[in-house]
Amino acid sequence: MAKGVAGLDRFYSIIPAGGIGSRLWPLSRADAPKFLHDLTGSGSSLLRATWDRLAPIAGPERVMVVTGRAHRAAVEAQIPELADANIVLESEPKDSTAAIGLAAAILHRREPDVIVGSFAADHVITDVRAFRRAVEQAVAAADAGWIVAIGIAPTEPAIGFGYIQCGNPLDIAGAPDALVAEQFVEKPDLPTAKKYLADEKHLWNAGMFVARADVLLARIGESDPALLAGLEELAAAWDDPAVRGPVVDRVWPGLAKIAIDYTVAEPAAKEGRLAVIPGSFDWDDVGDFASIAKLHSGGRSSDLAILGENARVLADASSGIVVSQTERIISLIGVRDIVVVDTPDALLVTTSQNAQRVKNVVDALKLSGRSEVL
Amino acid sequence: MAKGVAGLDRFYSIIPAGGIGSRLWPLSRADAPKFLHDLTGSGSSLLRATWDRLAPIAGPERVMVVTGRAHRAAVEAQIPELADANIVLESEPKDSTAAIGLAAAILHRREPDVIVGSFAADHVITDVRAFRRAVEQAVAAADAGWIVAIGIAPTEPAIGFGYIQCGNPLDIAGAPDALVAEQFVEKPDLPTAKKYLADEKHLWNAGMFVARADVLLARIGESDPALLAGLEELAAAWDDPAVRGPVVDRVWPGLAKIAIDYTVAEPAAKEGRLAVIPGSFDWDDVGDFASIAKLHSGGRSSDLAILGENARVLADASSGIVVSQTERIISLIGVRDIVVVDTPDALLVTTSQNAQRVKNVVDALKLSGRSEVL
Repeated sequence: MAKGVAGLDRFYSIIPAGGIGSRLWPLSRADAPKFLHDLTGSGSSLLRATWDRLAPIAGPERVMVVTGRAHRAAVEAQIPELADANIVLESEPKDSTAAIGLAAAILHRREPDVIVGSFAADHVITDVRAFRRAVEQAVAAADAGWIVAIGIAPTEPAIGFGYIQCGNPLDIAGAPDALVAEQFVEKPDLPTAKKYLADEKHLWNAGMFVARADVLLARIGESDPALLAGLEELAAAWDDPAVRGPVVDRVWPGLAKIAIDYTVAEPAAKEGRLAVIPGSFDWDDVGDFASIAKLHSGGRSSDLAILGENARVLADASSGIVVSQTERIISLIGVRDIVVVDTPDALLVTTSQNAQRVKNVVDALKLSGRSEVL
Repeated sequence: MAKGVAGLDRFYSIIPAGGIGSRLWPLSRADAPKFLHDLTGSGSSLLRATWDRLAPIAGPERVMVVTGRAHRAAVEAQIPELADANIVLESEPKDSTAAIGLAAAILHRREPDVIVGSFAADHVITDVRAFRRAVEQAVAAADAGWIVAIGIAPTEPAIGFGYIQCGNPLDIAGAPDALVAEQFVEKPDLPTAKKYLADEKHLWNAGMFVARADVLLARIGESDPALLAGLEELAAAWDDPAVRGPVVDRVWPGLAKIAIDYTVAEPAAKEGRLAVIPGSFDWDDVGDFASIAKLHSGGRSSDLAILGENARVLADASSGIVVSQTERIISLIGVRDIVVVDTPDALLVTTSQNAQRVKNVVDALKLSGRSEVL
C-alpha cells in the first residue's frame, strides 16, 4: 500500500458484478454472466482479474463486491478471500446507482471518511501499474472533494463507447494529470469519433468513478432523494442480522433503477464538480466477440482465436474466434472473421462484423419464450 | 409392370449401398453413411427413395441391395419388405466391380437370362416417370446385347462429374433414343465443361449401367479373369448356407478392388459395345453440402435450408444450409452461403464454396487419429 498517496489509506474499491453480457450469448448466460468467464485466456475470470488488480491498492480487505444472490457461490469460488462483510447481495438488479450507492452507504456507515471507487467486474486492463497510478491520482482528487472519473485515452475512433470531453487542467495535489470534465457525450458516429481521436480532448468513459462516499451519496440525493433515503435505510440495517432481511424485503423493490452516469457523473460534470484523470493504460470492455477475437489476436485479423480448455478445433484457411464449451470436434473450412460459440445447448455462428447484433438474438429468444437458453 | 417392354420381365435392379460420403462429414459417418440419411427433407432416406423408384419397374421382389455387414440392420429397417435372398452382405468393401458383379453373378445363377441394372443408393431423382422411361429403353438395349449407360443431359457446366461423349443414334427396338457411346471423359475444367454443355454431345455419367448379366460378367472377365472367377465361385456357393461362409472367408479377401467404370464401362465404350440412353430427368448425386443446399433452395441462393427433424434454428440475414442432429438452439447472424452441420460429437462450419474441401478434414482427422468421429 502506498501510504504516501493522499487518501489511499481511506480508499475502498467497489466491484459491481452484474449484467449478463447479452452480446456474448451463448457464452454469457443469466446463470453464467460475463464476469465469471475467462475471456482473455489468462486462466482467471474477468472478476478475479479485477479483484487481483484492485486488492493491492488498499489491501484485499478493502474491496467490496456487489452481485446478485444467484451468483454468491460463484463469486466466492472465484475470490475465496472475500470476507462476508465485503459481499453485498442484491435481491434483484436495480442498476448501478443502487448497487454502487448501497455499497458506498454501507461503507460510509462503517467509516465516515471512506473514499470509494467503482470498477466494473468485466473489463480487461493489462497494464496494472499505469492503472494503479491513475487510481492513486483519482483518490487524491476525490480526497480534495471532487467526483472523479478515470477516462481512457482513445486508441481508435470507437463508436461503441461514450466519451468525456475534457477541459482545463486542475491544480490538485497528488493528481497532476487531473482535468475538469466539461461534459459526457453519447456514443458518436464515425466522423465525430475520428474528430475526438484527433482533438485529444476526449476520453472514453470506462465507467470508473472515485469519490468520497459522503460526496457521492449527497450527489445521488440531489438527483433522487427517495433513492438516497432507501439506500441509507438499507445501509443502516445492513450490519444488523436481525433487521437486514425485513428491511431489504420492504425497501429494495421500490428502489429506482437508474445508471450512476445519470445520477452522479453527468450532473456533476454539468455542475463543474467532476474531475477526470486520463488513463494511459490499455482498456477493453470486451463487449462482443469481435473484441475478444481482437484481444486474442493482438490485432492480426488473419488469426483464429480459440477459447476453451477442452477445445478441439481443426481449422483450415479460417480466422476469427472459436469459443468451445463442449468437447466436440469443431472443424472450420474457409471461413474468415468467423465467430463460432459452441455450448452444450446453444450454438452461435456469426462474423466479427455482426458481433454487435448478437443482442438481437437474445431479444428474439426472449420473445419466443426460449428463455431456458438465456 | 409394363409387360410390353422388351426384357422388362427379366429385369432385376441392383442397389450397391456403400461409400461413406466423406464430403458430407460430420453428417455421414462410417456407421451412418450418406445413403441412410434423408437429405431431401422428403421423409425418406436416399436408399428408401432409390428403392421406391426401382421397385415398381419389375416388382419389389426384383430389387437386390448390396451393402456392408455393419449396415444390414439399418438397411432392413429402411426396407422391411427386402427379402433375405435380395440382400448381399459384403464382408469388406471391394469397390463397385465386386459389389455389382457378385450381385449379377448370383442373379445369373438363379435366372440365366436375367438383365441387371445398377443404381447408386445415394442419388436423388424426382422425375420418376422420366427415369422409368429411360430404364425401359436401357433394358430394351441391354436385351439386344448392349452394355448400356443412362447418361444425364447436363443443365450446367459441372466440373465435378465425368462425362460420356455420345456418337450416332443406334437403331434398337424399344430404345429409340439410344446412341453409341464414343468414350468416357474425366472431370473437365470449366471451359471444357462449358463446351460440353453447348455441344449437346456430352452427358453426365451418373453411374447407371444396365446389361444382360451374362454380358456384364463376360466383360468383367475380359478385364480381370481372376476377379470374375472369384465372383463366380462366390455366386456358386451363395445360395447354399452350408458352404457360403467358408467360401466367402476364403475368396472375398482376394477380390480386386476396382470400379466398374474401369472393368466394364470404359473398355466397352472403346470396343463400341456401349450404348447410352440420354436421361431427360433431374439427377443429383448430392455430393456435398452445397448441392444439398441447392436442392433445398430450388436454386435461390438467398435461402437458408434447414435439415433435421428437431432443428431449432434462429437465423438473421443468413443463407446456406444448417443440418441439425441435436436439439441445440442454432443461431446464425449475417452469414451468407454458410454450411453448419451440428452433430452430437462434431461441428462443421464452412461455406458452399468450400464444400468440396470437407473431404480434406476427414483425411486430417484420420491422420491425427481422431477416427472416433469419422
